[in-house]
Amino acid sequence: LYSGEAKKCTLIPGDGIGPEISAAVQKIFAAANVPIEWESVDVTPVRGPDGKFGIPQAAIDSVNRNKIGLKGPLMTPVGKGHRSLNLALRKEFNLYANVRPCRSLEGYKTLYDDVDVVTIRENTEGEYSGIEHEIVDGVVQSIKLITEEASMRVAEFAFQYAIENKRKKVTAVHKANIMRMSDGLFLRCCREMAKKYPDVKFEEKYLDTVCLNMVQDPSLYDVLVMPNLYGDILSDMCAGLVGGLGLTPSGNIGLNGALFESVHGTAPDIAGQDKANPTALLLSAVMMLRHMQLNSYADVIERSCFETIKEAKYLTGDLGGKAKCSEFTNEICDKISRTS
Amino acid sequence: LYSGEAKKCTLIPGDGIGPEISAAVQKIFAAANVPIEWESVDVTPVRGPDGKFGIPQAAIDSVNRNKIGLKGPLMTPVGKGHRSLNLALRKEFNLYANVRPCRSLEGYKTLYDDVDVVTIRENTEGEYSGIEHEIVDGVVQSIKLITEEASMRVAEFAFQYAIENKRKKVTAVHKANIMRMSDGLFLRCCREMAKKYPDVKFEEKYLDTVCLNMVQDPSLYDVLVMPNLYGDILSDMCAGLVGGLGLTPSGNIGLNGALFESVHGTAPDIAGQDKANPTALLLSAVMMLRHMQLNSYADVIERSCFETIKEAKYLTGDLGGKAKCSEFTNEICDKISRTS
Ligand SMILES: CC(C)[C@H](C(=O)O)[C@@H](O)C(=O)O
Ligand SMILES: CC(C)[C@H](C(=O)O)[C@@H](O)C(=O)O
Repeated sequence: LYSGEAKKCTLIPGDGIGPEISAAVQKIFAAANVPIEWESVDVTPVRGPDGKFGIPQAAIDSVNRNKIGLKGPLMTPVGKGHRSLNLALRKEFNLYANVRPCRSLEGYKTLYDDVDVVTIRENTEGEYSGIEHEIVDGVVQSIKLITEEASMRVAEFAFQYAIENKRKKVTAVHKANIMRMSDGLFLRCCREMAKKYPDVKFEEKYLDTVCLNMVQDPSLYDVLVMPNLYGDILSDMCAGLVGGLGLTPSGNIGLNGALFESVHGTAPDIAGQDKANPTALLLSAVMMLRHMQLNSYADVIERSCFETIKEAKYLTGDLGGKAKCSEFTNEICDKISRTS
Repeated sequence: LYSGEAKKCTLIPGDGIGPEISAAVQKIFAAANVPIEWESVDVTPVRGPDGKFGIPQAAIDSVNRNKIGLKGPLMTPVGKGHRSLNLALRKEFNLYANVRPCRSLEGYKTLYDDVDVVTIRENTEGEYSGIEHEIVDGVVQSIKLITEEASMRVAEFAFQYAIENKRKKVTAVHKANIMRMSDGLFLRCCREMAKKYPDVKFEEKYLDTVCLNMVQDPSLYDVLVMPNLYGDILSDMCAGLVGGLGLTPSGNIGLNGALFESVHGTAPDIAGQDKANPTALLLSAVMMLRHMQLNSYADVIERSCFETIKEAKYLTGDLGGKAKCSEFTNEICDKISRTS
């Protein structure tokens, strides 16, 4: 299916369990002969010529060159004024859409069967503008920023995603009954975009209603598009329905690049002990492959991962098993070898 | 237990199914001989001397006089610039804390057993400030306003509530990793208040984490306190866990009054057909009784309501039954008569 040279991919292994789950993904990719060459970079902030701390230039250059990357969990350095590195990366590369599919894993039992929703989150503005002031002592304002430009492009992304992934419905999630102007603008952009996609059903729902309905009947939803903070909340909630952040992938998509990442924490308590579950990072890497149109590789890897979980012989501790990260990884590699 | 004259209570029957569920509550209160005299008022906005629409003065006077009220669902009049009446009432009477207990109902099966959480929501500011501007064409800002005063009083309310209701833990829910100044201030107020209540456990959690954990294991939480919008979301989500807004009560508490309300909609499709479920309004009225320290009446009514639901002989349509609102109501009244 794939011809030509191996494509270079930036890899940000991350902190804590990051390096071991990244190594697991690399091993699995090698077993599947994925035509990718990894370029590992370190994003630990360094002091720049201006005296300020920032992402090292080499890392920035690598992502800009390769336009595609995979990222493990990053610790947010403690200290005032230090913003999350995860956010800094989304901002640096203008990764405007955050895509988080949440699907029930066959064979991994939760309270919910057949969850299959995708949250698409505006990733650059909204409540994450970073603009805040103390007006007078004890009175603070934070600014939620909604622009037509960013709303239009994420709305377009959502409908485009729906078409490409054969999904039936896009739900715009909002509180325009409260934030009439900001969420109102977001909503109007979604409505306008909806007109260009007559084959995709469109609906509008209040965020609180979606939260209520989602825990009662997730099958009510399909693709959901929303401002930044709402996406943060809903995507975590949906992840909870299918087993948590250890099992759900995430992709940050921009015009000039895309960064796929597991959104769980760095789990410093088990780091370096070969106990971590690489599934979320692996499924993020699978999303990355599909983004690169390396679908056949994505399919083989994904299937092997799901089967390994379903068979439940080699599950890591977080899934109730006793297997090491390496045993889980090897089992996936074995399955890949057997099928190809 | 109660001596003295019947206390006057303002009743805002509301729109849609409001009048019939209000009548049901009145009937049940009469069966229990609750020493309350209802003062029914209409809050449909009228044009004032200044030409603006607003809540009728008679309704405002009634609440100000009685300092206690019960409210059915209100339609938000359609039309630009018209803010929700529900919100207008919270604002008018400075009802700064919104309390929503969510408990699994014995005998009403959902995916979750033994949910028992209480969300306490700051009710006057935050994302509900109503301050919004269009900076330039297509660029809108909404202002989230957090003040030390409002944060302190809702934090105090939460701890006080925990003490009075023998709860063990208060969780402050925030996104201070993103909104460092505003949620940061809210969080600092909670921390400070926590010091004054050494017997109540205190913890801090990110909103997204709470959403994820709540759908996996609600027993992790007890009392939760948070800014306005987060409370809107979380309270609905928790209601979803135990069966929806038709079963969960809500109270808005201020220094000079308190208004208890069902937070479900007006259900115009079934209005006037004797099909509505009065449970949420009844349980709100039970909260009201406890607020008035009429605990013995509250206990009898609540028990009769729970038993009626548990026996499942007279359930309304929303609970999967075929009973009319009046049949459900009569059964509760019968139980009350039998026990007293
Ligand atoms: C780590 C944190 C800053 C981040 C966010 O709030 O977006 C995380 O919760 C996420 O969802 O990626
Ligand atoms: C009706 C609406 C304005 C209100 C809110 O957003 O607070 C409702 O959702 C609630 O929770 O009481």
